[in-house]
Amino acid sequence: MQNAILGVDPGLRVAGYSIIACSSSSAQLIDLGFLEQKSTESIPTRVGCFFDFMNKKIIEHNVSIIALETPFLGKNAQTFLKLGYLRGALYLLSHQKNLRLSEFSPREVKQAVTGFGGAGKDQVARVLFAMYPALQNFKCAVRNDVTDALGVGLCGTYKLNQEKIMARAG
Amino acid sequence: MQNAILGVDPGLRVAGYSIIACSSSSAQLIDLGFLEQKSTESIPTRVGCFFDFMNKKIIEHNVSIIALETPFLGKNAQTFLKLGYLRGALYLLSHQKNLRLSEFSPREVKQAVTGFGGAGKDQVARVLFAMYPALQNFKCAVRNDVTDALGVGLCGTYKLNQEKIMARAG
Repeated sequence: MQNAILGVDPGLRVAGYSIIACSSSSAQLIDLGFLEQKSTESIPTRVGCFFDFMNKKIIEHNVSIIALETPFLGKNAQTFLKLGYLRGALYLLSHQKNLRLSEFSPREVKQAVTGFGGAGKDQVARVLFAMYPALQNFKCAVRNDVTDALGVGLCGTYKLNQEKIMARAG
Repeated sequence: MQNAILGVDPGLRVAGYSIIACSSSSAQLIDLGFLEQKSTESIPTRVGCFFDFMNKKIIEHNVSIIALETPFLGKNAQTFLKLGYLRGALYLLSHQKNLRLSEFSPREVKQAVTGFGGAGKDQVARVLFAMYPALQNFKCAVRNDVTDALGVGLCGTYKLNQEKIMARAG
C-alpha cells in the first residue's frame, strides 16, 4: 500500500513543503515547493492561508502522514510562539482529517538522510540532490526551507518503512 | 449595535473562556466556563477539540471579536510552543469567520479591570466579583483560568468602547 507523506518546514514568511509517495520499495518525490507570504499581511490571514494551502495539498495528493521537525527555542521567543501558530494549524488538520502526525528532532532528520546526526545543512542538501537528481528541475530546491521540508518528509518515510519491517518481523 | 466578545485563556489541560455582550452602555456577562481535557489525549486531538469548542461558542453567541492575552515565555519553552498551537487555532477561527482578534498585554488587562497595571491576580478577581455579583452563581469562577478569560474579555470591551468614543470625537 502507498502512503503519501507531507513534510513541512513551517514559517510565516516562507513555508517549505514536500510530498513523497512511499511504498515498501520506493520513496517517490511527487511535489515540492513553498508558500511565500507578505509580512504586511496580518497574522490571522497568514495562519489562515497556510492552513488552506496545506489543506489543498493534503486533498490533492491524498496525504496520510504529516512529518514535522521539533523546533528549539532560538533567540526570539515571539518568533518561536508564532511558529507554534502554524504547527497548531497542522495539528488541527491532522485531527480533522485523521492523519498521522510525526515529529522528528533535527538530529533524527540528519541521521535519516545522511547517516550522520551531526551533518550540516549543506551536507543534507547534497545527499538529497544525489538521491533525487530530478531536484535540479525544481528551481525552489535551492532554498533551505524547501530542502528542510524534503529532509523531514524523507525521514518520515524511513520511519514508516522501519515500523513496517519491525511489524513483519514481530 | 451590540458586539459579543469571546475572551480566552488558552491551555491544553484547561482553557477558560468568557462571552460578554457589549454595547456603548453595557457589558453583559453572557457565558463563562472552561474546557478541560485529559493529558492522556494526543496533542492533535486536544488542539482539534479546543478549535471545535471555541467554534461552537462563536456560533452560539454570534461572536464578532476574540480577545487574548499576549503570553510571555516562562520556564518551559515546550509549554510555550504548545500554547502557540491553541493560539494558532484562534487565529485560524478569526481568519475563517472574519472576526477581529485583539491581543492585550497582562499589564493592559490588569489596568483595564482594576485601574492599576501592577495588580495581583486576586485583586483582579475581587474587582470582577464586585462588577458581576452574578459570578457567584458560576461555580467555575473560582478558577484562575476562568477569571483570566473574563478579565481579557472585559479589557476587549473597554478598548472597543474607547475606540467608538474616539471615532465619534474624531
